[in-house]
Amino acid sequence: MKRILIIGGGFAGVYAARQLVRRLNSGDFEVELFSERNYFVFQPLLPEVAGGTINSQDAVAPLRALLPGVRVREATVFKVDFERREVGYVHGLRRRPLLRTYDHLVLATGQTARLEQFPGFEAHSLAMRDLSDAYRLRNQVIGCLELAEATEIETIRQEALTFVVVGGGFSGVETMGELVELVRRACKSYPSISPEKIRFVLIHRGSRLLPELPAQLGEYAYKHFERNGVEVKLGTSVEGASMNRVRTHVNHFIDCRTLVNTVGSGPTKFTESLTLQMLRNRIETDAMLRVVDKNNVWSLGDIAAVPMGNGEWTPPTAQFAIRQAKLLATNIHNLESNQPLERFRHSPIGTMASLGNYRAVASIGRFNFQGLCAWLLWRSFYIALLPGFSTRLRVALNWLFDYFLPRNLVHMSESRYGGCRTRRYETGDKLFLEGHFLDGLYTVIRGRLLFEGKGLDGTPFAQEVGPGEHCGEWLLEQGDITTARLSALETTEVLVMDSSDFRLLRSNLRGFDQILKASDPPE
Amino acid sequence: MKRILIIGGGFAGVYAARQLVRRLNSGDFEVELFSERNYFVFQPLLPEVAGGTINSQDAVAPLRALLPGVRVREATVFKVDFERREVGYVHGLRRRPLLRTYDHLVLATGQTARLEQFPGFEAHSLAMRDLSDAYRLRNQVIGCLELAEATEIETIRQEALTFVVVGGGFSGVETMGELVELVRRACKSYPSISPEKIRFVLIHRGSRLLPELPAQLGEYAYKHFERNGVEVKLGTSVEGASMNRVRTHVNHFIDCRTLVNTVGSGPTKFTESLTLQMLRNRIETDAMLRVVDKNNVWSLGDIAAVPMGNGEWTPPTAQFAIRQAKLLATNIHNLESNQPLERFRHSPIGTMASLGNYRAVASIGRFNFQGLCAWLLWRSFYIALLPGFSTRLRVALNWLFDYFLPRNLVHMSESRYGGCRTRRYETGDKLFLEGHFLDGLYTVIRGRLLFEGKGLDGTPFAQEVGPGEHCGEWLLEQGDITTARLSALETTEVLVMDSSDFRLLRSNLRGFDQILKASDPPE
Repeated sequence: MKRILIIGGGFAGVYAARQLVRRLNSGDFEVELFSERNYFVFQPLLPEVAGGTINSQDAVAPLRALLPGVRVREATVFKVDFERREVGYVHGLRRRPLLRTYDHLVLATGQTARLEQFPGFEAHSLAMRDLSDAYRLRNQVIGCLELAEATEIETIRQEALTFVVVGGGFSGVETMGELVELVRRACKSYPSISPEKIRFVLIHRGSRLLPELPAQLGEYAYKHFERNGVEVKLGTSVEGASMNRVRTHVNHFIDCRTLVNTVGSGPTKFTESLTLQMLRNRIETDAMLRVVDKNNVWSLGDIAAVPMGNGEWTPPTAQFAIRQAKLLATNIHNLESNQPLERFRHSPIGTMASLGNYRAVASIGRFNFQGLCAWLLWRSFYIALLPGFSTRLRVALNWLFDYFLPRNLVHMSESRYGGCRTRRYETGDKLFLEGHFLDGLYTVIRGRLLFEGKGLDGTPFAQEVGPGEHCGEWLLEQGDITTARLSALETTEVLVMDSSDFRLLRSNLRGFDQILKASDPPE
Repeated sequence: MKRILIIGGGFAGVYAARQLVRRLNSGDFEVELFSERNYFVFQPLLPEVAGGTINSQDAVAPLRALLPGVRVREATVFKVDFERREVGYVHGLRRRPLLRTYDHLVLATGQTARLEQFPGFEAHSLAMRDLSDAYRLRNQVIGCLELAEATEIETIRQEALTFVVVGGGFSGVETMGELVELVRRACKSYPSISPEKIRFVLIHRGSRLLPELPAQLGEYAYKHFERNGVEVKLGTSVEGASMNRVRTHVNHFIDCRTLVNTVGSGPTKFTESLTLQMLRNRIETDAMLRVVDKNNVWSLGDIAAVPMGNGEWTPPTAQFAIRQAKLLATNIHNLESNQPLERFRHSPIGTMASLGNYRAVASIGRFNFQGLCAWLLWRSFYIALLPGFSTRLRVALNWLFDYFLPRNLVHMSESRYGGCRTRRYETGDKLFLEGHFLDGLYTVIRGRLLFEGKGLDGTPFAQEVGPGEHCGEWLLEQGDITTARLSALETTEVLVMDSSDFRLLRSNLRGFDQILKASDPPE
């Protein structure tokens, strides 16, 4: 019995597994799929989850239910030995590494956020890739409305009411559409928020929105957003983000507490570790989906650069992944039965994007649609594409209810927010002020901070804090309310250790308080 | 204009706010409610959320929608100054402490888990109090099924398939009922799990289940569980929990990966900090709901010990909280209009508990119901009690769908699990083994560990690790796969710092690697 291992549980991996089970004789082949999640994410619906139009559980489907006949492993693959034809993996809850040999290996590892070129984005921007991202964005938005309702400080209110999305492709446009709807509908529950204070900014590097669609539709999207009070900044790229601000390439700062980023994709660290031949950050394959220079290794989906024959490579969309999955099954079948392999050939049927507020744009064959009719088309199309009857029914009902029921504005704060996280500040930013509650121990990674205020005995002090140095330890001891302030003297990256973790380490790890001596209050 | 501040957003706080707005003249009074969450949790439905019968969002309702006319503050109150009649609070996302004065203060702070008497429960048991608890239990159960499906080690599979609930009151019984249904329905998707391997254990200190209900119904619940394969251990109390085990008072160990605890309640730390006169861990009030020895301070709900006139105090149930809320509004109104205050008087209407699998028990007036008819009664009752039409509709549809649609088995692993956490181990427990991936730096809080294996140069070593000492640092450097093992020589509590946090501190906090020298591989 031959074994086909698939790595990845997105559109490419799931459809490949389905097609393989369908095409191959189950007595001769076994198909196993490795995914870090036990569920499939229907990514095009994530903005709707973030917006609260549909329930989070309805944009996903358990892989086991989707893939009868496939052995699903919720596991992280950490290595591939192409010589010995085996993969090393570790199960989610476990720590024991295991090995599995293969006859065919299918790499459908997709793309992930690669934010090296955007300093501060890792720490201060939200993504729109996984279910947890959608969930987090929704909570972030509701948290900002709560903050705007509560605060008496005008600048903080304005920051809280500014929502920035980076990227004018499908994901960015659909996310902005849903964000606008969510905020506009939600703010009725917050009597002290005046709607005209709310600011939406869509930042896009290109000269028009939705570059994948005909120019006319990008133009329509632009006008739709302008009408709905969204500032669309075309030809603008982002240079970096810090706590509560984003900086554009013209050194313009936008103060905001919510920054969603939909650009900057690349291979996962695991894919990189395979040291395969790459082409524009994707795994290079031939037209038959075989990975260059490897035997019995295939790749498809977003991570694969598959030549289309016209000098171009397949774009990273679900539509192409699904078509490639069919070809993959055919080619593995043909190879095993000594028939010639086929080449990838596909002309896209159509593409569409929802703009929110019952509007969408769609390009199908040679026809363009926009407005309500495109929106109805968009909804029907996605209902049809959803996996499984029960999900379809649920999503349809969600959409129906959305017309006449209020949206749920539950603010699920993250239950546990311990550990160390990095933050980035621009010159002049205040990290904390006198009288604030202190949330942790601050260590400078790079840059320079100014720490000033009153010591334990009331004596004023001021000192610079540089890389490797920390501050705040004696303030945490004092009962959390600070008598000092900390501000950034230049662009500074800081490591913040949660105060509860700090206390646990301080009282349990011998020697830990020795290294803290340095920051005792100046005498 | 007089101001009434309510602290707490559970049944007591929410119903008090509603009744006050209804009773008092809105021109003369303003009502403000402080809650750490911006939503109300319909606690009786949490087991259903954990079981997946209803969507998590449908067991909650946003406070702002529930409380028109009330100023809702999503904030943490950290102090009360009874002399100056003011509270200090801080908003969720903010760090600046604020003050608010009051004319009347209503303490509806409820109870929280107080697990001091159960060593290891803090670290290793799940609760059933908040929405996040239900969510976590559900993920834990699905994670265990994934593990059982994946593992080749029989003892681990058995641990993963053992589900223990502590407490035979409403919450424990309903949670067990839902757990059984969830696991039985889910395990069909896991072909390698044989249903007879699955073990459910319900541990209860008392001599019969559901002590709040007539004996006959407790007996029915017992038989129902026995028929459904649940081991009910009456007259059994728990002594402590460790990683993967729970210990009963007769020193009997039950190996399990899922432990739900529904016992051990007490006041929150904030309530304790008020230094009010307490009675059996609750705030003592008079029959008019006034807190003893305080002026214009009232208390109701689970946290209030309200005399019933018959020598007993009101039990901590939603029913009593709702009745007390009415009295509270009356009494504040009467006090302000110089009328005599009324005393609390209420005989409970009825109580019921769902057992899962379409069965429930109910005691209404002098009548007892059990089985399917009690279950239908239970569902209708809760539908009626749910706040808001849209939630009612959604829950009803969820229940309806549950009959003919499969349950969603999505395993949402916690997106970020950094920071320090404590773990408890019993003598002989292995913390990690050679060849495992290491997840963090281990520091002993109390107890003793044995660290043995091979050093960097292959030389065998064995050393004891005591309080304040740590180990694993050089293993983490080596690339995470261990060449040593760590086991407990006695009952030991350990602080585990996540490996990613460890690396952040090591490379950024000056002096941190000095204290790690102690654990360099022995030469």
